[in-house]
Amino acid sequence: MQGPATHREFFAVRTVAEVLEGFRPARRTPVEEVGLLEARGRVPAEPVRAPHDLPGFPRSTVDGYAVRASDTFGASEGLPSYLDVTGEVAMGRAPAVAVAPGTAVAMPTGGVLPDGADAVVMVEHTQEAMAGTIEVVKPVAPGEGTVRADEDVPAGGELVAAGRPLRPQDVALLAAAGVTSVRVHARPRVAIVSTGDEVVDAAVERLEVGQVRDATAPALAALVRDAGGEPDLRGIVPDDRRALSAALRDALAACDVLVVSAGSSVGARDETAAVVSELGEPGIWAHGIALRPGKPTLLADCGGVPVLGLPGNPRSALVVFRLVGMPVVRLVGGVTRPPAEPTVRARLARDVPSAAGRLDVVQVTLGDGVATPVFGASALLSVLTDADGYIVVGDEATGLQAGTEVDVTLYA
Amino acid sequence: MQGPATHREFFAVRTVAEVLEGFRPARRTPVEEVGLLEARGRVPAEPVRAPHDLPGFPRSTVDGYAVRASDTFGASEGLPSYLDVTGEVAMGRAPAVAVAPGTAVAMPTGGVLPDGADAVVMVEHTQEAMAGTIEVVKPVAPGEGTVRADEDVPAGGELVAAGRPLRPQDVALLAAAGVTSVRVHARPRVAIVSTGDEVVDAAVERLEVGQVRDATAPALAALVRDAGGEPDLRGIVPDDRRALSAALRDALAACDVLVVSAGSSVGARDETAAVVSELGEPGIWAHGIALRPGKPTLLADCGGVPVLGLPGNPRSALVVFRLVGMPVVRLVGGVTRPPAEPTVRARLARDVPSAAGRLDVVQVTLGDGVATPVFGASALLSVLTDADGYIVVGDEATGLQAGTEVDVTLYA
Repeated sequence: MQGPATHREFFAVRTVAEVLEGFRPARRTPVEEVGLLEARGRVPAEPVRAPHDLPGFPRSTVDGYAVRASDTFGASEGLPSYLDVTGEVAMGRAPAVAVAPGTAVAMPTGGVLPDGADAVVMVEHTQEAMAGTIEVVKPVAPGEGTVRADEDVPAGGELVAAGRPLRPQDVALLAAAGVTSVRVHARPRVAIVSTGDEVVDAAVERLEVGQVRDATAPALAALVRDAGGEPDLRGIVPDDRRALSAALRDALAACDVLVVSAGSSVGARDETAAVVSELGEPGIWAHGIALRPGKPTLLADCGGVPVLGLPGNPRSALVVFRLVGMPVVRLVGGVTRPPAEPTVRARLARDVPSAAGRLDVVQVTLGDGVATPVFGASALLSVLTDADGYIVVGDEATGLQAGTEVDVTLYA
Repeated sequence: MQGPATHREFFAVRTVAEVLEGFRPARRTPVEEVGLLEARGRVPAEPVRAPHDLPGFPRSTVDGYAVRASDTFGASEGLPSYLDVTGEVAMGRAPAVAVAPGTAVAMPTGGVLPDGADAVVMVEHTQEAMAGTIEVVKPVAPGEGTVRADEDVPAGGELVAAGRPLRPQDVALLAAAGVTSVRVHARPRVAIVSTGDEVVDAAVERLEVGQVRDATAPALAALVRDAGGEPDLRGIVPDDRRALSAALRDALAACDVLVVSAGSSVGARDETAAVVSELGEPGIWAHGIALRPGKPTLLADCGGVPVLGLPGNPRSALVVFRLVGMPVVRLVGGVTRPPAEPTVRARLARDVPSAAGRLDVVQVTLGDGVATPVFGASALLSVLTDADGYIVVGDEATGLQAGTEVDVTLYA
């Protein structure tokens, strides 16, 4: 594209919805194999199927007696069914005896249902009539007190889906099926480049007047991990076009996602945009997002690798990264079914102003079902640390009134 | 305690609320120091305070001009204030010039406010009248366009609280203050001992009839990590009193929390209870929890170390560990302010039966604001893997009707 088209693209301000639906750089991480104990949170590259029926044998779900259900039909306290106990099933062993009409076999929970039996009557619904004989005082239906051999998952059934980060119970089901390693997407390597002439490393003990420590990069590293990525902190680059260009090219060659924590001033941001626009095709996709805080955000697709230019102030940068950066990291890491955002319902303690045509992210504290907005300059990190979560005021809304029910997304 | 008291304790069935409020073994992990990049999720052992004011200097929050606010009072498009531009502040540098009456100094966002200035007028509200002079067309109030030197956090102010797992923004604030390491509680070492004659390792490829693989232990390991602990999988012990006793004593000596995934049958559970009761004083605190699934749960305090005996079936074990095990791991790890449970509101698709006097945990799938219960035998792991979350039906309720609004806690 040339001239006007390029020009229009260069200045395209996108909505958050457009970003989440439309920004789709091609990069996906390769597939690797991980052991079950490292699989939590990892993203299967393909569905995993059960190699055999689970549990694999018909199983008792109660302590009691394996019976033919029809032998108990009509049984009651007043008119019990009498059954001869012909044996006992031991845990972990195949039954040594089958259940014939008029007989019962003692069963532990989890034991193998013997041949001939189709139900297990709970021990509470029996009593010993004499040695070797029980009275059943309540009928059981066929199947009661048991699970079928394939009731958990049949052979070939899906144990876990592709694209959904593995939860603890998924790990359990894989273990039950004897699947001890899983093919998953590699964690996206997320390069984080900090810029800004005023920015110094967090380890600098005494600041010169005007200097600030790099608060954004270590927090981004944490968010990258939360999204399943592996952060690569590449240090602080001065607001100098050649230095920035070299640093970003180096980073781009070694990462799956590139994040630039750009300077705060208009000049520094323009510089970053100019450098990013030369990193690769098709280039800049959004120059600004209709979001507050976070408007001066840059999104680019440089040869398939997503590049995010974040606002210079740490609070805005973290808000943007949570809303649009983490989904991008997940996308590249093969996630097609992201974990649901943790939210709670609350009532607004006071009016929240907003402007139509953009999303507003407003930090709130929570107490007794009431969400109280934390106001403060967008440069203040303490607004984020004081908050329990945030609300999003949508594009159409021109503000929310006190008392409105809102969904608060939690900072966990 | 002796005789009757011990006896009563031994059979005490507790409610989940009693467990969460009353089960308080003394063990806490020691304090260690971690670097900022490993601090996410870690639990500060003490509050961390700001060594100096943050940001440390009065700062511009906009691109524009530092001014004396009073010089702009009454300014309008029709009657602008004229100010001489006497210099420019560079990012990261102390200002070379002060603001005298009738003058202005050009400012980038984030720059140091010069002496004499008390506000920054946005560049959008100015225009260049002639070289070296600007017109201000809108008044600013004192303080506008700036943050004070101590506005984020004053020297000595609390950066992060003790007992609350560190969030990404907490990491950011610590970095901003130059705090590059934090004193945190060590991760609780959680020993996980599996028992059951039918249980074999997940790596066993071909099962004998009656055998099941240990699905619980790997999933518990994941939940332990989610709660900030470090799992120590100690393998599978046969249902034999001496072997179990030896295994639990060894584990107890090397851990901060001991979890026993006990056999499913009444006999195996009684065995576990007998062994746990001899592990240390004061001993068993709850023998059963009013919870379904999960009733056959054991809680003990053995010389300050919490010991949990979980039900034998994996689904019940994971439900119990989530509800009462993870809070115990957090307690031992110094958490006094646990992260809020992620929940969403939904309407029940159908009636859910329950019994008064116990909690019922019911797995549900979610779609379009509707929670559909997943029913199935408590032995089925697939009920957990099919679910998006769960609802808890309280002690008092005898069930919930279709259409009831419920809070669904998410499996993330």
